[in-house]
Amino acid sequence: MLLAALLRSGGVGYSNRMKNPAAMSAADLNAFMAAGFPRWDRTGIAIEDCAHRKARLRMTTGERSLRPGGTVSGPTMFMLADTALYVAVLASVGPKALAVTTNMSINFLRKPPPRDLIAECRLLKLGKRLAVGDVTIYSDGDEEPVAQATGTYSIPSD
Amino acid sequence: MLLAALLRSGGVGYSNRMKNPAAMSAADLNAFMAAGFPRWDRTGIAIEDCAHRKARLRMTTGERSLRPGGTVSGPTMFMLADTALYVAVLASVGPKALAVTTNMSINFLRKPPPRDLIAECRLLKLGKRLAVGDVTIYSDGDEEPVAQATGTYSIPSD
Amino acid sequence: MLLAALLRSGGVGYSNRMKNPAAMSAADLNAFMAAGFPRWDRTGIAIEDCAHRKARLRMTTGERSLRPGGTVSGPTMFMLADTALYVAVLASVGPKALAVTTNMSINFLRKPPPRDLIAECRLLKLGKRLAVGDVTIYSDGDEEPVAQATGTYSIPSD
Amino acid sequence: MLLAALLRSGGVGYSNRMKNPAAMSAADLNAFMAAGFPRWDRTGIAIEDCAHRKARLRMTTGERSLRPGGTVSGPTMFMLADTALYVAVLASVGPKALAVTTNMSINFLRKPPPRDLIAECRLLKLGKRLAVGDVTIYSDGDEEPVAQATGTYSIPSD
Repeated sequence: MLLAALLRSGGVGYSNRMKNPAAMSAADLNAFMAAGFPRWDRTGIAIEDCAHRKARLRMTTGERSLRPGGTVSGPTMFMLADTALYVAVLASVGPKALAVTTNMSINFLRKPPPRDLIAECRLLKLGKRLAVGDVTIYSDGDEEPVAQATGTYSIPSD
Repeated sequence: MLLAALLRSGGVGYSNRMKNPAAMSAADLNAFMAAGFPRWDRTGIAIEDCAHRKARLRMTTGERSLRPGGTVSGPTMFMLADTALYVAVLASVGPKALAVTTNMSINFLRKPPPRDLIAECRLLKLGKRLAVGDVTIYSDGDEEPVAQATGTYSIPSD
Repeated sequence: MLLAALLRSGGVGYSNRMKNPAAMSAADLNAFMAAGFPRWDRTGIAIEDCAHRKARLRMTTGERSLRPGGTVSGPTMFMLADTALYVAVLASVGPKALAVTTNMSINFLRKPPPRDLIAECRLLKLGKRLAVGDVTIYSDGDEEPVAQATGTYSIPSD
Repeated sequence: MLLAALLRSGGVGYSNRMKNPAAMSAADLNAFMAAGFPRWDRTGIAIEDCAHRKARLRMTTGERSLRPGGTVSGPTMFMLADTALYVAVLASVGPKALAVTTNMSINFLRKPPPRDLIAECRLLKLGKRLAVGDVTIYSDGDEEPVAQATGTYSIPSD
């Protein structure tokens, strides 16, 4: 219902397509994700901050996120990177639930210990049809990144 | 325990590094994955077939796999592709739980309806240190692929 | 001039957008490339065969293509892969000189000796706006591929 | 001959594997590239600056670099990105001519006009066997990037 309301209203508290302000706030985005993804709370992801063409997310990791050796699994990092890119797109263009990833390339750099992960995303391009963004993932407290991803989102026309 | 036993024995029922036979059977691999990943049964993935440098996996999809619009999510397909590549590597070199993906590039081609997914993986290269493989994902019953991925695995020395 | 003529006529000797026949023949495509790229003949590339959603190219390699160690360089293989994808798109949709690659991911599998390279391309998806294709590159006479690439082309609207 | 001399000497003017200084200077690297690649001067590339895990390159573009529409071609940008990554690796580990790219993923963001291109590369990881780096390409004078690439280099053991 919240999702439907957000889609109807064209979003909460944002000024449409002005160059600099975010189209949705971090609070809007957390609500939007919780409404659209049935098990959002189980992902452990929270949107900490966002701006036009930028987003920062935090993910708590649990036993379900680990692979043999006790480090965070690749698919867990991919989910975080993909979500960060989706959130950065929504923060820039407003609530378009049907925006889809067309491709994503991810490099796993170091094995992350079972701590929180932080994803920093910035959009390298924001066109009418395609957005391209770059995501760097850190293990909380470390300076060297644990993964880096680049992906393309296809933005549906209204 | 099963995992530890498999690692100790160097694997069940396979002939080490012969060119053509698989190093592990589909049954060995299902047992190995269930032992190494605490929630393997919740992934919905089963290894249907494997051979030297090849693997075929099936994944049942449930509500947790869906994104807005009711199609299977990108991270779900990534997890399947990554697992297929890991399984094809293990099928070729035997049980090395600590083999890790170094990178993966995935293209999402069509939105898959909520049906079983099939992943077909073949290794394009199987070196001593690196393996590179190609995964094509189909929605059960369709001929056109829904996703294609290419990835690199780093194989630990013994 | 040939290029302008081809663009005006909508292409030579092909039937527009029928499902199965190629939109341009291998001879059409060789002429189109020679007209559009000022130094096409210096690339050493020839289009050997094409069909709807498919293309096969051959490239002769010379001293300019080599890197230290005497093997064919990565950028040379990238150029061949990118051209193969462009040609497969043109073979399918007709002469659209301004179709552009939006991204390309390439894996270098083996060091190719200074012999001809063969590129086999097939399109995994051919949409109205985007085409995604897969290219495998062989060193002439070898069965194992030397490189594999996957890329996306953006197709301009008319 | 210069190349052989550099390889014999283990490099000119650098302190081996200290954490912070570059293993080779920009002047060393320009000489090394000219010695190893027979047509280096025809690439139009110059190494402007480098440091441990970093490099900046400039490329002049000419008629040979253009595609239909008069913009710089994708393979030209790929060659620049690949060279920038190679140079950043050499700047960090010293002259290892046989370091090879294992994969590279490139996104083309905007069509670059026929002006100089600038590539900024930084290594995200510098391991003993693998280095992973990120390259952003700009058209001289523009703030928005025209291409972004991420790649992996395999570093030979001595």
